[in-house]
Amino acid sequence: MADGQPDGQETKRQRSGRTQRRESRMHGTEGVGRPYIVRNIPTYDILSEENLIRIETTADRILAEVGIEFRDDPEALELWRKAGAQIDGLLVKFEPGMLREVLKTAPAEFTQHARNPARSVRIGGRNVVFAPAYGSPFVMDLDKGRRYGTLQDFENFVKLAQASPWLHHSGGTVCEPTDVAVNKRHFDMVYAHLRYSDRPFLGSVTAQSRAEDSIDMARLVFGADFVDRNCVIMGNVNVNSPLVWDGTMTTVFRAYARANQASVIVPFILGGAMGPVTNAGAIAQSLAETMAGCALTQLERPGAPVIFGNFLSSMSLRSGSPTFGTPEPAIGSMVIGQLARRLNLPLRCSGNFTTSKLPDAQAMTESTMSMLAAVHCGANFLLHSAGFLDGLLSMSYEKFVMDTDLCGALHSYMDGVKIDDNELALDAFREVGPGNHFFGCAHTMANYETAFWDSQTADNEPFEKWEAAGSVDAATRANARWKKVLAEYEAPPLDEGTDEALRDFIERRKAGMQDAWY
Amino acid sequence: MADGQPDGQETKRQRSGRTQRRESRMHGTEGVGRPYIVRNIPTYDILSEENLIRIETTADRILAEVGIEFRDDPEALELWRKAGAQIDGLLVKFEPGMLREVLKTAPAEFTQHARNPARSVRIGGRNVVFAPAYGSPFVMDLDKGRRYGTLQDFENFVKLAQASPWLHHSGGTVCEPTDVAVNKRHFDMVYAHLRYSDRPFLGSVTAQSRAEDSIDMARLVFGADFVDRNCVIMGNVNVNSPLVWDGTMTTVFRAYARANQASVIVPFILGGAMGPVTNAGAIAQSLAETMAGCALTQLERPGAPVIFGNFLSSMSLRSGSPTFGTPEPAIGSMVIGQLARRLNLPLRCSGNFTTSKLPDAQAMTESTMSMLAAVHCGANFLLHSAGFLDGLLSMSYEKFVMDTDLCGALHSYMDGVKIDDNELALDAFREVGPGNHFFGCAHTMANYETAFWDSQTADNEPFEKWEAAGSVDAATRANARWKKVLAEYEAPPLDEGTDEALRDFIERRKAGMQDAWY
Repeated sequence: MADGQPDGQETKRQRSGRTQRRESRMHGTEGVGRPYIVRNIPTYDILSEENLIRIETTADRILAEVGIEFRDDPEALELWRKAGAQIDGLLVKFEPGMLREVLKTAPAEFTQHARNPARSVRIGGRNVVFAPAYGSPFVMDLDKGRRYGTLQDFENFVKLAQASPWLHHSGGTVCEPTDVAVNKRHFDMVYAHLRYSDRPFLGSVTAQSRAEDSIDMARLVFGADFVDRNCVIMGNVNVNSPLVWDGTMTTVFRAYARANQASVIVPFILGGAMGPVTNAGAIAQSLAETMAGCALTQLERPGAPVIFGNFLSSMSLRSGSPTFGTPEPAIGSMVIGQLARRLNLPLRCSGNFTTSKLPDAQAMTESTMSMLAAVHCGANFLLHSAGFLDGLLSMSYEKFVMDTDLCGALHSYMDGVKIDDNELALDAFREVGPGNHFFGCAHTMANYETAFWDSQTADNEPFEKWEAAGSVDAATRANARWKKVLAEYEAPPLDEGTDEALRDFIERRKAGMQDAWY
Repeated sequence: MADGQPDGQETKRQRSGRTQRRESRMHGTEGVGRPYIVRNIPTYDILSEENLIRIETTADRILAEVGIEFRDDPEALELWRKAGAQIDGLLVKFEPGMLREVLKTAPAEFTQHARNPARSVRIGGRNVVFAPAYGSPFVMDLDKGRRYGTLQDFENFVKLAQASPWLHHSGGTVCEPTDVAVNKRHFDMVYAHLRYSDRPFLGSVTAQSRAEDSIDMARLVFGADFVDRNCVIMGNVNVNSPLVWDGTMTTVFRAYARANQASVIVPFILGGAMGPVTNAGAIAQSLAETMAGCALTQLERPGAPVIFGNFLSSMSLRSGSPTFGTPEPAIGSMVIGQLARRLNLPLRCSGNFTTSKLPDAQAMTESTMSMLAAVHCGANFLLHSAGFLDGLLSMSYEKFVMDTDLCGALHSYMDGVKIDDNELALDAFREVGPGNHFFGCAHTMANYETAFWDSQTADNEPFEKWEAAGSVDAATRANARWKKVLAEYEAPPLDEGTDEALRDFIERRKAGMQDAWY
């Protein structure tokens, strides 16, 4: 086991999380959950230092010999020039070691503040934050099938996330609200996160001005001084893999960094398309692209928080379609985790991915494989923890329920195996003895309430009882559950003056704009 | 990473497995697969030595202070007495360290021979063997629902396992053939494994005479001398947890050991019923029970192969029903794996468990969680790798297909991330450069055939194409697949004289018996 990793010793926070769980059970609700997870299991490290260095050396050679293009952002080129990179037109090449040096100013851990301080999250180290899926144009449910997402759907998913004790973050574009003009929808999305959730959230990344609008709205809630000193909003940006950083993205993440807000820097590599088909090569590319993006945030504002992201995937040989939740990206994530820790940066990894078009067995095989990989590799921020179907294109109401249930199970999983006299239960064996059962023994009575994860969606009943209740499948149960949760949703309190200030800001800004639909 | 663990260096066997995969793809079939997996990823070790020792000390105190009852087997008590244990009626107590000393004669690795030598499996070390689920009284499919299993079902599952390139073992009681008398069905089961599969298999454990019949049938195939020197059949036996070894089980596993055949020694602990609700206590109990069983095989015949088994599970607080595929047993498995390796014994762990009554999203969430735990903890023999639904009570045709598909994915997963110049792909980056795609580049053309796991049951098509093809879910695809595989099944060749000898033996033995139905 790696040095300094947790091992059976529970922290004060975890004990209090458990007490909270017991309390919420006693009150018959799911409760509010923990603000985030502090993992009590080590990371799963699969490669030796020697092989990690071979990947890092390959990334360094890609950066030095092939280089990365920075398009449509002359200021970025100027920042690189000043930092000593070699510029040739749009192509930037980096001496080995240069980016690692620049990255030394990036924090290893930081807090993203929520408007409810009890919901603030700590990102980095042993901390794990689950956020909903991001970016689907479509939504799905069992009643109405697939259709384009609307603002109503967007608000529904923000409410469902807020109501789940097993998510920690409100996410960003939980679905595209396609009934609102492209140049205006960021106002409504940020407002929905601030109004219907009291958790941290992500702002717009589709244009520099929209990123700045998002940050301005956060300033109305948190105060401009607080925002300059603390992270309250983040932007999730994609590399245009292979080896291209687009100006839209770099101007956006530079805007977040300038405001001292965090960026999540994410290469999106489908092996065989935006990268090589071999895992080691795709990982080296991912490392090169992420380091360049993260380093540019530090040139913009040294010390700005930034997250080392990645998104590896594979391709079906038969159809040429992208595949998700497959074994190669899953095992590759473990290596990505080791590389991120060697850079001392917080890590974002893949969450619940699948190409299935239904919340069926395929969907949860692929999602569980992918989600467990993110947990094992040590990801600190798990975007896409709940909702995706259809190869990232659809946000499913039923899948959202299934995924948050899995997120709940992963809380217990990451608590690990605790070792103390109560857990070892020697007295219970003395009390019960050979051949008897533990149902009513003192140790069971003292521990059963908090002993096991209790799924809200699994059916554990005997066959006959399940059959008598209508032989309902998991998707149908999930359908009933999201409707119940939405019906019972209560908005967290929001200061009236703040709400008014937000609505005024949006009205004024929208008033000066023509609708744009692209 | 633990010392001496594999790390990115592929073995000759793996290379040849990959070549085989490519060849079978080129011929348009799934091919025969590898005889077993040699893992190229380390185990996932979560507890420190200090905490492992606390668990071991608790197990030692259970053995010394509480003891284990050995019922209805006076010879077992006599073996313990001679070995120096303290006997009080049926209760046996063991000085700390005594069982570890006895266990030193057990092999760390052994080969179970198949009648087709190319299918023999190596059990222990870095080797991983997948076997079908075991013991369900019921079978299920989408067409006919749940009903009692028959010999026809049994033969079908043996054929489906044989046809899958992703299983390595034919298993044992793949379902109960309830249409055959209880005292005669072991003949038909062993015959089916020998006739319809050429992989290794498990024999009867329901009575000493049936275990001996099973071994006698193996002698007809392998020769008595060979059987005395080599493992060709195994018996999977359960502890009567807590802390009771029943005479039926001990006389059975002593019969296997006497014949130099392997036993799998499995405590079955549902936390809160047959053990404490806390994970550490259940693990300590499991260790104590397993050590006692494994040690008794060594008193019967020092050096007989034996497998350290375990089966941890949890309970639903709301219904009192057992639950499977939940987080606590999954993370507990990692500790069990560490403990087995400290004893230098091959490990059996949980496979694909679920309480779902359908091959739906719940089924595969729970199965994937459980199966990945078995892979990560370093299990060498994964019984229950395919087929279970309904809390172990039903063998599902559709679930069998889904699970074997997951087993296939886990082959690629356990290959890990290989590191060499081809995998690192530096030349591909030089060839493709920033902003271009890798579809037709030389590196992709040279590697794409073997790059990614290619599921036979997942649907990765775009939504529109999937919808046009009928919006079929995973369970329906699995239904079509098992029918196709059964229809195309071809029995492996079996020497006619051997077949006749087996049928004669069965006829003679059955002729002297009255049907018994309990």
